[in-house]
Amino acid sequence: MNTLQLDLGERSYPIHIGSNLIGQADLYKKHLKGKFSAVVTNETVAKLYADTVVKTLEGLGQKVRLIVLPDGEVYKTWETLQKIFDGLLESGADRKATLIALGGGVIGDMTGFAAACYMRGIRFIQVPTTLLSQVDSSVGGKTGINHPLGKNMVGAFYQPAAVIADLATLKTLPPKELAAGLAEVIKHGAIFDATFLSWIENNIQALNACDLAAMEHAVQRSCEIKSSVVAQDEREGGLRAILNFGHTFGHAIESGMGYGEWLHGEAVGCGMVLAADLSVRLGLLKSDDAKKLKSIIAQLNLPTQPPKFGVARYMELMSIDKKAEGGEIRYILLDGIGKSKIQAVDDDLVAQTLIATGAA
Amino acid sequence: MNTLQLDLGERSYPIHIGSNLIGQADLYKKHLKGKFSAVVTNETVAKLYADTVVKTLEGLGQKVRLIVLPDGEVYKTWETLQKIFDGLLESGADRKATLIALGGGVIGDMTGFAAACYMRGIRFIQVPTTLLSQVDSSVGGKTGINHPLGKNMVGAFYQPAAVIADLATLKTLPPKELAAGLAEVIKHGAIFDATFLSWIENNIQALNACDLAAMEHAVQRSCEIKSSVVAQDEREGGLRAILNFGHTFGHAIESGMGYGEWLHGEAVGCGMVLAADLSVRLGLLKSDDAKKLKSIIAQLNLPTQPPKFGVARYMELMSIDKKAEGGEIRYILLDGIGKSKIQAVDDDLVAQTLIATGAA
Repeated sequence: MNTLQLDLGERSYPIHIGSNLIGQADLYKKHLKGKFSAVVTNETVAKLYADTVVKTLEGLGQKVRLIVLPDGEVYKTWETLQKIFDGLLESGADRKATLIALGGGVIGDMTGFAAACYMRGIRFIQVPTTLLSQVDSSVGGKTGINHPLGKNMVGAFYQPAAVIADLATLKTLPPKELAAGLAEVIKHGAIFDATFLSWIENNIQALNACDLAAMEHAVQRSCEIKSSVVAQDEREGGLRAILNFGHTFGHAIESGMGYGEWLHGEAVGCGMVLAADLSVRLGLLKSDDAKKLKSIIAQLNLPTQPPKFGVARYMELMSIDKKAEGGEIRYILLDGIGKSKIQAVDDDLVAQTLIATGAA
Repeated sequence: MNTLQLDLGERSYPIHIGSNLIGQADLYKKHLKGKFSAVVTNETVAKLYADTVVKTLEGLGQKVRLIVLPDGEVYKTWETLQKIFDGLLESGADRKATLIALGGGVIGDMTGFAAACYMRGIRFIQVPTTLLSQVDSSVGGKTGINHPLGKNMVGAFYQPAAVIADLATLKTLPPKELAAGLAEVIKHGAIFDATFLSWIENNIQALNACDLAAMEHAVQRSCEIKSSVVAQDEREGGLRAILNFGHTFGHAIESGMGYGEWLHGEAVGCGMVLAADLSVRLGLLKSDDAKKLKSIIAQLNLPTQPPKFGVARYMELMSIDKKAEGGEIRYILLDGIGKSKIQAVDDDLVAQTLIATGAA
């Protein structure tokens, strides 16, 4: 097992990465404050892992409540969040209670937001069981829910007490979700570390096969990169926005298709193709590098062809994006592979990218 | 106009107290970040003051949206909160938007919580128009909504950018709401400042008549006391809990009657009578001082007779209270007038208080 530390002063926390961690009592023990824990998970993950986690916590003398939510991005709503509050209040959970987020990004985001809000803040532990959540959403403290008018519009910056990333859980992941997680792994290489992107390119087969040694490196390096960025800019005042590479176009795709039609990682994979194309048009990225990136995305079984919504609809969908500041959309661009840049871009140039990539 | 500063490091903010402040542009100006503001208020307050505030902000070049919510504690729910998010998203509000909470405690709590959650946090200004919110809820950053199973169970610690307490707005307050605000004024004297409680006792008539000079002192001294406590313990790790004097019994009354039946301040007024009785039973407070406190509460037109729910029901209602930590209710008690103490108390003694005061 490797342990990274995300350095945020008094909000610092460890990220444990290794195989068969979810049943290791010592990883939970020091992060529990009171005598009550609630394990929040979804119907799919509950069948696989809830029993192990609940028994491990009970072995530590915790009174444990299992809260099972429906599975899917479409349930990342206030109504579902309310079920967590209902469960906590029915159990008489107090301010010393601990929430355990057992599942993917949707479970982590909702459980973290519930922890941020319940009695104005209780502790929680992230136990991500998907690649996407292990390499991205479980780290950094972004929590929240969707609103009918926009993704992640309601939420909080709220850090977990620990992240326990069990690589063995990746073996039960459907291929589509493995690919979705790899999108964020690619992103970390593209924006921050050309060497890591080359490593990805050279390990396509191992990654597609979910080889655990390859996964360990992918998760470890992703968490290192994300931790480094978040430690410098916890509340996204500047630098942290580079982690949204591919997300401006990606959110437009997700939202335009209706949440849940495309997996978040699939939309980000495709969004990176568009953002790279735009970077080339701005003279920031070599055309060959954009092609290489697109080829990696395609080889890792992610879509590279955006839905054809047309220019006007894309612009409308992107304008609601929360990265729009003062009415201006700020695009995350590649300034060569391994470096990124954030700037406003003329609508005309964005339209060219949309047309050239078949989005319009 | 007097200005206090609540000292919380980078989250410090000014509290302006004076007459006819809501139309003073300079008080808002330096706290606005972007070009968009939303004034959140209720149907009752909107008729009186919305126009002045909206025009003042428009005079500063702001695009302003007025969001009018239904009036009353019973609407302090997620459904109502959602109307704020709807309005912000329909207006395309971004992270630089500012919310203005124009109204009493319910509006302040909900608007503050909406600001805490919208896009994971935007700024807001408290413009309290009731005595209760001017002396208590607008200061200190407690925000939130009620849950069917408990009051303020979902929320955040989130500080405003400024508080603008306009004493002139108190002149339009119904007598019942004036009394409810005075409950928290009494509380500040009782727990922290015997001299202030004597001043209250000597100014009953002026306070009941809403004399603005008396109000100014009452608001000013209350904000000073609350600021001093909050600056030492922002997130209620210890000391801050003394501000909940009268609230453990008070919340039980509110919740047992059904939210909205008793005003919060009325329940707190009556709750203080019970907490003082309990303090006497523990040998902490002289019987005469408890009588004096009860007499002040009664003379300021607050109820001193609790509803007769019986011992078991009170214990049940109090156990859900968020101040219950690790299953144990911690009572806020008077250790003599002007000093407070927090401790667990035997159920038997609490039962004696409930019986003696006619609550059981």
